[in-house]
Amino acid sequence: MLKNDLLLRTLRGEKTERTPVWMMRQAGRYLPEYRVLREKYGFFERCQTPELACEITIQPVDIVGVDAAILFSDILVVPQAMGLEVQLIESKGPVLPQPIQTAGDLNRVRVPDVNETLGYVFDAIRLIKQELNDRVPLIGFAGAPWTLLCYMVQGKGSKTFDEAKTFCYTQPELAHQLLQMITDTTIAYLKGQVAAGADTVQLFDSWGGLLSPQDFENISLRYIRQIVAALKDEVPTIIFAKGAWHSLDAMAATGAHGLGIDWCIHPQMARQFAGAGTSLQGNFDPAKLLSPIPVIEKEVKEMLQAFGPGRHIANLGHGILPNVPVDHAKAFVDTVKNFVY
Amino acid sequence: MLKNDLLLRTLRGEKTERTPVWMMRQAGRYLPEYRVLREKYGFFERCQTPELACEITIQPVDIVGVDAAILFSDILVVPQAMGLEVQLIESKGPVLPQPIQTAGDLNRVRVPDVNETLGYVFDAIRLIKQELNDRVPLIGFAGAPWTLLCYMVQGKGSKTFDEAKTFCYTQPELAHQLLQMITDTTIAYLKGQVAAGADTVQLFDSWGGLLSPQDFENISLRYIRQIVAALKDEVPTIIFAKGAWHSLDAMAATGAHGLGIDWCIHPQMARQFAGAGTSLQGNFDPAKLLSPIPVIEKEVKEMLQAFGPGRHIANLGHGILPNVPVDHAKAFVDTVKNFVY
Repeated sequence: MLKNDLLLRTLRGEKTERTPVWMMRQAGRYLPEYRVLREKYGFFERCQTPELACEITIQPVDIVGVDAAILFSDILVVPQAMGLEVQLIESKGPVLPQPIQTAGDLNRVRVPDVNETLGYVFDAIRLIKQELNDRVPLIGFAGAPWTLLCYMVQGKGSKTFDEAKTFCYTQPELAHQLLQMITDTTIAYLKGQVAAGADTVQLFDSWGGLLSPQDFENISLRYIRQIVAALKDEVPTIIFAKGAWHSLDAMAATGAHGLGIDWCIHPQMARQFAGAGTSLQGNFDPAKLLSPIPVIEKEVKEMLQAFGPGRHIANLGHGILPNVPVDHAKAFVDTVKNFVY
Repeated sequence: MLKNDLLLRTLRGEKTERTPVWMMRQAGRYLPEYRVLREKYGFFERCQTPELACEITIQPVDIVGVDAAILFSDILVVPQAMGLEVQLIESKGPVLPQPIQTAGDLNRVRVPDVNETLGYVFDAIRLIKQELNDRVPLIGFAGAPWTLLCYMVQGKGSKTFDEAKTFCYTQPELAHQLLQMITDTTIAYLKGQVAAGADTVQLFDSWGGLLSPQDFENISLRYIRQIVAALKDEVPTIIFAKGAWHSLDAMAATGAHGLGIDWCIHPQMARQFAGAGTSLQGNFDPAKLLSPIPVIEKEVKEMLQAFGPGRHIANLGHGILPNVPVDHAKAFVDTVKNFVY
C-alpha cells in the first residue's frame, strides 16, 4: 500500500486532502546530485544501468519532496529498440544518423521483443519500486507515436519538423505503417513497465502541437487512442500532447485519466474543453521558476485557484529548465503542498 | 486607384467578388528569381538598396499572381536602427552579438529618428508603389515589441526564448522600458511606411505564442494595442501573433482590421473567438505545400469552405518553406482565385 497515493486518487477522480505535485524532468540537470552522475556516465549508460536510473529517479523525491517519482529514461529508447541508431549528445540534442525516408528504410525497423531490447527499463522499475518502498507512486512513460516518428524521420530535433510532416503528407501509407509499428511497440513497452511496477503511465506527445486539428486526429490521436485503450484498465493513463489544446475534448474521450496542458491556455478554458471527467495536469510556465521566490509563490497560488480543488495535478507546462535554482523548485512544490483552498 | 483592392476591402469588411490571397514570405527563397539575387547580394544589401527590395517585393506578384505585395525587409531592421548590431547569416539565423541584459545595456539603445535610420525602407516603398503601378496593394510590416525584445535580449533565435522571458520576469521595469522604446520606434516606423505609400501594415508577433494568456496581455498585447491605435485611422492593420489563439478576442478588441491565425486552430473556432467584426487571415499549414498538387487543391478548398465567404484573407499559417516548388505555390494561389462558394 502506497503511503502517498494523492496522484493516483486524483487521476481516478477521488477526493484528496490536497493537490498532488510533481515536475516534468524533475530528475534532471537542475539538481547538483544529478550533475555529478552526468559527468561520470554517458546518457544511455545512466538509462541502461538500473542502479543509476534508480538513484536518479528517486533524487527529486528525497531532495524536492514531490508526490511522485517518474522513471529516468528517454522517449528515444523505443526507436533504438526498434533498430535505429540513436546518439544522445546532451549539448547537441538527439541525432539519428540513418533516419527513415523511404519504403526501403522501413525494412530497417521492427516491432521488437521488448523484454529483450528494453528489459533494462523493467529491471530499473523493479529496483526503483523496491527503493521507493511505497513512499510515492512511480510514473512510467513513453513518447507518443507521432513524436517518435518526428525524430525517426527528421533524424534530429527541429522547431517545425517539416521533413517529418512532409513524409506524412507525401507518403501517408508508409507513415501509417511506421506509426502502427511504433504503437505496437509502445503498447508492449508500457505493459512491461506496468508489469514491472509502474503505477501510472504518461504519453509524451511533445510535437502534437505542430499539427492542425485534423492532422492531429489522423496522425497522432488515433494511435494514442489505441495505447490508452490497451492500458487504461491496468493503470491510470496521462496524455501530454503539448500545444494540442484544440483536441482536449477528443483526448478526454479516449478514457485517459489525466491530460497535461501547457501554460498557454487558461486552466478554466482547459477544463471547459476537457469536460469534468478527466484530471488536468499542469500548467506553470517553466521559465517562471527563474523568477524571485515570492513571485513564484504568488503565481503558483493563482494557478491553484484557477484550477480549483480536485481533478488537478500541479506540474509545469513543460520540463524544468537546467538553470532553475533548487530552492526555486522547492518553493514551487512547497507552495502547492501548503495551499488551502 | 488600385486595380485590385480585394485585400483592402476584405480588411474593411466590405463585400468582394472572391477571397484575396497572399503568402507570408512570398518574396523568398522558393523563387529561383530571388535566389539569383540572394547569391549576388548580402541580406542587408538587399533590404537597403531600394531597387533590389523593389524587385524582390514585386517578384511574387508577377510570378505567382498574389493579390498583394509585401515589402521585402526584416523585422530586425528596427533593433538595428535602435543601435544594436544585427548579423543576418541566412544559414544560421540572426545573431545580435551584444544583447540587452542589464540596465547598463539599455543605454546602448535609443528611439531613433526613423527618417535617418530607416529612410531606405521608405525609399524602397516609394519605388515599389511606382513600379506596382496600382496593380495590387502594398503591405508594410514590423515586428511586435515582444518578438523584437526576444531577439534583443536572447541575442539569437531560440525554441523557447527562456532568456528573454527570464529578463521580463526578473527585471520587469527594465523590460517595460525597452518594450516602450521599441513601441515608440515602431509607431514612427510604420507611420513612415504609410506616408511613403504602404496601403496596410502587419505586425508580426512570431513569439507571442510562447507566453501565457496573462503574460501575453502584460508583455505583448498592451504594446500592440498602442501601435494599432496609432495606425488604425490611417490604414487597415493586421496582427499576426502566432499561437496566441487564446487572445483572439482581446486582439479583435484593439480595433485591428485583420488577425492572422496559424493552422493549429479550426477556422470556425477562430471566428468564434475573434467575433464577427474583424477579418481572419490564414491558415494553411506551410508544410502542406509540399504535398502533391491535387492534395493541395483539395485541402485549400476545405480551408476556404471552413472560413466561409467574406472577412477571410487566404494565406499560410506561417512563412512559405524554401523547398516548396513554385507550381505548388501557384496551385495554392490559383485554387483560391478560382474557388466559388
